[in-house]
Amino acid sequence: MIVVMKADATRAQIAEVETRLREMGYRTHPICGDERTVIGAVGVTRADNPEVIGKMAGVDRIVPIMKPYKLVSREFNPVGTKIRVGDAVFGGGEMVVIAGPCAVEGEEMIHRVAQDVKRAGASVLRGGAFKPRTSPYAFQGLELEGLSMLRSAGKAANLPVVTEVMDTRDVEMVSEYADIIQVGARNMQNFKLLKELGHVRKPVLLKRGLAATLEEWLMAAEYILDGGNDQVILCERGIRTYESATRNTLDLSAVPLCKEFSHLPLVVDPSHGTGLARLVLPMSRAAAAVGADGIMVEVHPDPIRAMVDGQQSITPAQLSVLVTEVKRVSAAVRTHPQVASGSCKRAI
Amino acid sequence: MIVVMKADATRAQIAEVETRLREMGYRTHPICGDERTVIGAVGVTRADNPEVIGKMAGVDRIVPIMKPYKLVSREFNPVGTKIRVGDAVFGGGEMVVIAGPCAVEGEEMIHRVAQDVKRAGASVLRGGAFKPRTSPYAFQGLELEGLSMLRSAGKAANLPVVTEVMDTRDVEMVSEYADIIQVGARNMQNFKLLKELGHVRKPVLLKRGLAATLEEWLMAAEYILDGGNDQVILCERGIRTYESATRNTLDLSAVPLCKEFSHLPLVVDPSHGTGLARLVLPMSRAAAAVGADGIMVEVHPDPIRAMVDGQQSITPAQLSVLVTEVKRVSAAVRTHPQVASGSCKRAI
Amino acid sequence: MIVVMKADATRAQIAEVETRLREMGYRTHPICGDERTVIGAVGVTRADNPEVIGKMAGVDRIVPIMKPYKLVSREFNPVGTKIRVGDAVFGGGEMVVIAGPCAVEGEEMIHRVAQDVKRAGASVLRGGAFKPRTSPYAFQGLELEGLSMLRSAGKAANLPVVTEVMDTRDVEMVSEYADIIQVGARNMQNFKLLKELGHVRKPVLLKRGLAATLEEWLMAAEYILDGGNDQVILCERGIRTYESATRNTLDLSAVPLCKEFSHLPLVVDPSHGTGLARLVLPMSRAAAAVGADGIMVEVHPDPIRAMVDGQQSITPAQLSVLVTEVKRVSAAVRTHPQVASGSCKRAI
Amino acid sequence: MIVVMKADATRAQIAEVETRLREMGYRTHPICGDERTVIGAVGVTRADNPEVIGKMAGVDRIVPIMKPYKLVSREFNPVGTKIRVGDAVFGGGEMVVIAGPCAVEGEEMIHRVAQDVKRAGASVLRGGAFKPRTSPYAFQGLELEGLSMLRSAGKAANLPVVTEVMDTRDVEMVSEYADIIQVGARNMQNFKLLKELGHVRKPVLLKRGLAATLEEWLMAAEYILDGGNDQVILCERGIRTYESATRNTLDLSAVPLCKEFSHLPLVVDPSHGTGLARLVLPMSRAAAAVGADGIMVEVHPDPIRAMVDGQQSITPAQLSVLVTEVKRVSAAVRTHPQVASGSCKRAI
Repeated sequence: MIVVMKADATRAQIAEVETRLREMGYRTHPICGDERTVIGAVGVTRADNPEVIGKMAGVDRIVPIMKPYKLVSREFNPVGTKIRVGDAVFGGGEMVVIAGPCAVEGEEMIHRVAQDVKRAGASVLRGGAFKPRTSPYAFQGLELEGLSMLRSAGKAANLPVVTEVMDTRDVEMVSEYADIIQVGARNMQNFKLLKELGHVRKPVLLKRGLAATLEEWLMAAEYILDGGNDQVILCERGIRTYESATRNTLDLSAVPLCKEFSHLPLVVDPSHGTGLARLVLPMSRAAAAVGADGIMVEVHPDPIRAMVDGQQSITPAQLSVLVTEVKRVSAAVRTHPQVASGSCKRAI
Repeated sequence: MIVVMKADATRAQIAEVETRLREMGYRTHPICGDERTVIGAVGVTRADNPEVIGKMAGVDRIVPIMKPYKLVSREFNPVGTKIRVGDAVFGGGEMVVIAGPCAVEGEEMIHRVAQDVKRAGASVLRGGAFKPRTSPYAFQGLELEGLSMLRSAGKAANLPVVTEVMDTRDVEMVSEYADIIQVGARNMQNFKLLKELGHVRKPVLLKRGLAATLEEWLMAAEYILDGGNDQVILCERGIRTYESATRNTLDLSAVPLCKEFSHLPLVVDPSHGTGLARLVLPMSRAAAAVGADGIMVEVHPDPIRAMVDGQQSITPAQLSVLVTEVKRVSAAVRTHPQVASGSCKRAI
Repeated sequence: MIVVMKADATRAQIAEVETRLREMGYRTHPICGDERTVIGAVGVTRADNPEVIGKMAGVDRIVPIMKPYKLVSREFNPVGTKIRVGDAVFGGGEMVVIAGPCAVEGEEMIHRVAQDVKRAGASVLRGGAFKPRTSPYAFQGLELEGLSMLRSAGKAANLPVVTEVMDTRDVEMVSEYADIIQVGARNMQNFKLLKELGHVRKPVLLKRGLAATLEEWLMAAEYILDGGNDQVILCERGIRTYESATRNTLDLSAVPLCKEFSHLPLVVDPSHGTGLARLVLPMSRAAAAVGADGIMVEVHPDPIRAMVDGQQSITPAQLSVLVTEVKRVSAAVRTHPQVASGSCKRAI
Repeated sequence: MIVVMKADATRAQIAEVETRLREMGYRTHPICGDERTVIGAVGVTRADNPEVIGKMAGVDRIVPIMKPYKLVSREFNPVGTKIRVGDAVFGGGEMVVIAGPCAVEGEEMIHRVAQDVKRAGASVLRGGAFKPRTSPYAFQGLELEGLSMLRSAGKAANLPVVTEVMDTRDVEMVSEYADIIQVGARNMQNFKLLKELGHVRKPVLLKRGLAATLEEWLMAAEYILDGGNDQVILCERGIRTYESATRNTLDLSAVPLCKEFSHLPLVVDPSHGTGLARLVLPMSRAAAAVGADGIMVEVHPDPIRAMVDGQQSITPAQLSVLVTEVKRVSAAVRTHPQVASGSCKRAI
């Protein structure tokens, strides 16, 4: 940590800050500039609340130096994490396509979509049984019944399934039915839920929060790893900005940056990321081009009759085109040896 | 709902949209403009997923007309909700000051602060026992022990207490110790938690989410009222913007707007809203001037040794000044009869 | 325009609104819903200030129906605009690469970069002579001298050149030296400058403002077309969000959306869009995959000694790799006939 | 400046960075932490482009220490700048109220409003003759004619006038008619215009840009002071956020922060800051409570017939109430001696 003193800080104030830093376990290295003094504070991995130094008399501000995450950092696992689920390998070099309806609407429907998804070439089935809805009056999902339908549809189509959990009390139940457990954007900082998922032996797909920084997102993943579960897949799903032409602004820069900062695999969700079905294909191609490990898209046999999020769902026929195109772009990117090596550190 | 057709929509497409709308229970009123047709859809209070219409061929976009909330709306209770807790009345015309440490750090400390808070003229004691922290390595609160200390400190100082709950499994326990149960910004759309709080017989202080719109915030409150608990106090605590000079951007316009849209009382948290202790006083005065029903501030006897959020905590001495000033501003605003009537609808 | 009345609007208020609308030239079509009335207002292409209706007694809000732009709209020119400059054709189906230093730093330097840019396979040379800098103490560009150097370097390398104009007084001068005149993000709503560029016979590259919506951006282009110059190239360069890991958030969804809304060609600037040289290659590939008509990147022979923006400049060697990869991705996207047709309307 | 090296930076990389820093004129002070090295770089007031260091091999990032502004800083003029215009003194301790129509619409109208404004107790008349409009088809102002009408109306009512300039070519003309020259939000980083205004002998009212940080805003003011004009009044007018319930989000925290960082007076514009006439009164009271030096509001005798921005204009009668209330709040704040001293540094 660096402590920047004010230009008019007194010697006594500087001394007091050094004393407090040493109390907290730091070694201090003051540097006297022409206008002001800064103090390097060294030797404490993670002080509990270093920001308080920023409040001391004569202090202008503090600058953290170390990244706050450790277990999720690329340094911790330079070769990268691979997560195998069914035939899919997240982080293995091949784009994984996860597809399915926003919500499980019924037995027949989810079975039909599962077959369509399989046929189109996707390798994981998605479907919500617990739905986080802005309105208490909107369809909230089929819950346990939905989990069971999803499970059986996945089994019939030979596809592993991913579904969301919203409540610590449901973690055990959901982990019995799901191959991958999803944490939604609104729960990214539901720390109790993250802790609970640290004790589960199933991969967790962790969506980025609506307005989460990359650092906060990685810290949310750190909660899960810290609990003992190192099978986390990150999912970029768009952030909230002032632009209202799209539901969210899909932040594709997050892909190479997170791959640089962390060893965890990362997929992109262009359905929520744009909120517009007609943008799903071009943004999926872009996700492949930028180096994502996979994409997750919403598919519905009859989008205009979907119970949830029909406006951003594509049809099974469109999914087939999408899988083909995503693979073509991914191949074009990987045929170049420099790119194949993957890390954006190398590239430019 | 209004459905705006594209300029080049065909008659068949328009007919198809009308058919689908009628299927959903709407009556339709097409208006043929010079360039395009719009269709008024009338008669359905809350269709489950009207956005799908936006996906139909020939449709440009849809425009919702009705506010999605009902129980929290001003129309539902034009005189406004008053919530009495101890000597404090939220929504009763007097500014309520809630104060206390970010976290309960120990028995002696919380008792001492409680006395300070009482002496300064505040009427509710705050203190966290469950702390939502970005990092899993940071202090997470004293949990049950902290609840018990807070309770006893409040009792000794004759102050009701407010504290946060983060997990559906803890709702019952927290409601035994707290007079007001707080939902933190990160849990504003933890819908399972909101539902659980709908069944509790204690007031809920609902913080606005980091990047929540007013509408989403009111819909979160709607979840609680829909569950049967109509004692909700809204708390504006700053939103996330691009500006990094403050921790968040305190959105004071939200105060008169929410008072117009809803009958619920609303307090302002300038501690989290700015993240800087030296802004707490001026922004508290502003909150009083704009018509808030109260403020909630963090107080610590020794902010630079606080375990959490010391940089935004004020001292007990500063709290005394703050209570005095807030009351003076509030009185200045209310002495004017036009202002005293409260509603911003009237004013300008 | 749709006028949404409040639930408690009186008949007299509704009548008054209709009267005012008719005064403004509209025909009115009231629709009486179960809870409130909405009024369709038809027949006026562009009222000067329709928002005032929103202020009338009993009015809840108004909803504009028509897009405010006309000349830039896709409807106005469904086949799309092609702009030929030297060997480059913007909007012609091939990715155009614009490259060069942020600022022209000297005669020898710009000549050397021009040769490098040519050799790498780019087809337009960029270089700033007038530099908009946050600080008055930073290098402001070589101005007229810089224009002349850029011109001669472009000529020697057989590359057309693009450079920025910041002042209405310089438009004539810059248009003598430049093949394409750039409007920077900070001047996107410098309406006097836009009007002046409406009278120029050179293509204009119009960067999106820091916090501009797609609609405001297209309206800025409309100013230029309305002045008589229909040669406008849009340039997405990232928007300002809360995320600080990158300089801006590159909004790639803007590419297919703008291609749908407008007939103008669109290029992407990943240098400013990310602010990090190591993200320029992956985001350029993404821009190609999503359907941009070109990219604009900053190149410097010795980025760490660049006078401006070195941290986001790539080297000539990296540019060669980039041109190759961008073309490979572009080809992969276009070999698929469905994608070749270009419009995102078709796709999904 | 602090240079943070990567954890795996080599000794050679550290040495190279030190060499480059010394080339730039810095003295270097390396601090070897347990995980990584940071280098303090001291002794250069304003390097032209220090960010390039961030690109060198082994560098993680750089941290600027010094504020980039000098002439506008509070340190440069601790007592604060007072700007006298007519009877108004900006920064003199009394709230100044600037009021008038968005646009000068005609001779009679502006004369009438001027009288109303005077009668209501405001002390500066505003009115636009050059209007920056999103649409080229909207009313663009009466230009020279409007300037002349405004001048004569101000004279008749004995009020100084403020009006906007949009083009470097008009600066001389506008400065002949205006007592205060306004720079609009969209031109806050029109650096050529700022430079031109540095040579004028009239006060400049500088609005904050739509998405400008406090630092960028102060740097824009620095351009004007650096040109020789130290009469700058800052104007907070709301920033762009994701929230759409208001036109902008009025950032009142900016008031005490800017007063701390800078000696320049600061006014608040709640009309543009909210976009809703009914929020103008409560937000004006809040601006007074937070310590602004004045407010600027839009007034129109018949808002629903205003040519521009009627939805955010108040009536002359409402202005009278507003002036009274703002003065009452201001007095309540200032009667307290601690608050009267003004600086937020003192307060908490």
